Amino acid sequence: MAQRTVLFVLFDQVQSLDVTGPVEVFAGAERHTPGTYRIGTASLDGAPVRTSSGLTVVPDRSLADVPDPDTLVVPGGQGTRSPDPRLTDWLRAHGPHVRRLVSVCTGAALLAGAGLLDGRRATTHWAYCDRLAREYPAVDVDPDPIYVRDGHVATSAGVTSGIDLALALVEEDLGRDTALTIARHLVVFLRRPGNQAQFSAQLAAQTARREPLRELQRWITEHPGADLGVETLAARAGLSPRHFARAFRAETGTTPGRYVDRIRLEHARRLLEDTGDGVEQVSRASGYGTPEGMRRAFVKALGTSPAEYRRRFRPAPAH
Amino acid sequence: MAQRTVLFVLFDQVQSLDVTGPVEVFAGAERHTPGTYRIGTASLDGAPVRTSSGLTVVPDRSLADVPDPDTLVVPGGQGTRSPDPRLTDWLRAHGPHVRRLVSVCTGAALLAGAGLLDGRRATTHWAYCDRLAREYPAVDVDPDPIYVRDGHVATSAGVTSGIDLALALVEEDLGRDTALTIARHLVVFLRRPGNQAQFSAQLAAQTARREPLRELQRWITEHPGADLGVETLAARAGLSPRHFARAFRAETGTTPGRYVDRIRLEHARRLLEDTGDGVEQVSRASGYGTPEGMRRAFVKALGTSPAEYRRRFRPAPAH
Repeated sequence: MAQRTVLFVLFDQVQSLDVTGPVEVFAGAERHTPGTYRIGTASLDGAPVRTSSGLTVVPDRSLADVPDPDTLVVPGGQGTRSPDPRLTDWLRAHGPHVRRLVSVCTGAALLAGAGLLDGRRATTHWAYCDRLAREYPAVDVDPDPIYVRDGHVATSAGVTSGIDLALALVEEDLGRDTALTIARHLVVFLRRPGNQAQFSAQLAAQTARREPLRELQRWITEHPGADLGVETLAARAGLSPRHFARAFRAETGTTPGRYVDRIRLEHARRLLEDTGDGVEQVSRASGYGTPEGMRRAFVKALGTSPAEYRRRFRPAPAH
Repeated sequence: MAQRTVLFVLFDQVQSLDVTGPVEVFAGAERHTPGTYRIGTASLDGAPVRTSSGLTVVPDRSLADVPDPDTLVVPGGQGTRSPDPRLTDWLRAHGPHVRRLVSVCTGAALLAGAGLLDGRRATTHWAYCDRLAREYPAVDVDPDPIYVRDGHVATSAGVTSGIDLALALVEEDLGRDTALTIARHLVVFLRRPGNQAQFSAQLAAQTARREPLRELQRWITEHPGADLGVETLAARAGLSPRHFARAFRAETGTTPGRYVDRIRLEHARRLLEDTGDGVEQVSRASGYGTPEGMRRAFVKALGTSPAEYRRRFRPAPAH
């Protein structure tokens, strides 16, 4: 295999970990099998960039000076919010000509802004998925996966997900043994357990604008263990079930059933994170009825079981 | 709380991810709760450093110019192998005066070289644990944990483990909600499932120097599912069990039982990684007898179950 070039685009207020995570994966592959990857960095004018954490990084050259690479990596960070139009132009001109076009985290916004995600499935940081979908309706945003491949375009979820995606690209180029060796060296999993959703802590802002539905939503939040069937909720709102379901959907953009599901999931997550309550107790308090019902809901929404979830997010023990 | 200073020591051939991982954790805390952390970087002479992946990073100042920080972070990387003696001197002089002394990955070697780990429990990258223990017998090296706290000194395992440790330090300073928020934002677990051992792929070089024990070791490797009790192995070697056990230990530094355990574990790991064989089949082929026996061995050695292990390291599905 000829040596492949991997170019990282740098800009002010880039997230440093979006860059160094994938950089270390490709650098690890080059160390493992010399002659496979040549890694470069470039900013618009070749000047040093200040990352959002305050680190200053010096690029190798300016974007105007680099030949189109094999793999182009566009990291995310605060700097993606109001990108330099010249960077967007450069991406629009060069993005279609690389073998693989990759974004990390909110780097997806730069690709979308250059029209490179139109008609494609893509992901980005969980906190930015809604906005990406709203601002770029031609992009099919999937908030769950750690990364998404669609044709020659690969987009990864938040921050450290860039490592997962880079490992997948190295696996594609050099095989699984190499990818596994690099993952182990970096002390990361070759395959992350679960999906991005388990890292999201936000209940999307699906709040009704008007009372009494707003008041009813508050009540649901405070009573996740109660009977929250549509009939019961409709009766509390003084509406017929059909009228209630229609009004709820119009006001919040979601159905009463899905809203209740999300509230119960958030409640159970919080109890697993913050208390020592047993799984049985948590499932009852959150309205799942049985531990098995809660387990099914967790696996479906978060790609992991309640027990595993607790292990990952519970308080650290005393040292 | 007064703003705490966090200083990162930079040097040529530092591992960039050892730096940016913890940097982003503290920077995330500062973004979440402004006024909590001031992050700085310094190299010996204040000049830019070239990281082992090729990135060039510009430090804020020289080590001679910085006041002792609250938290001093010493990253790892190739540059720790033959450190500048002036850096070791600086660490020896300043390490004892900071509130928290932290190493990431092979940064532990720099602390050990300055005598700062003497009499302490510590960890480092799994591939470097044996060497650290050999070169610094006064250090109590534990190869398993993701990080170790001992008094004011905290050492983390390989590369990305620096993120885990930094999260623990932020949790200590600012509470669990803040640490959880940052972890989620970076899309990492607040608490890593399992321990560092599951990332290690090496069977430590415990090979006998002389035949016939060497030949016997080969045979064990090729027949992990056979009866590998001391009596059987001794008979194969043509020695009494007692004589065999003594000779094996003298030659390899470990007992026949422990050697067999490691071979079986490695064999089972490989089958879980590379084949679709069921857990029952893998446990039989690896000499565990029952799936429950294999499960116990995995939890003890790797901190995780065979099923979880497979999920993390199995091949990626087609996209």
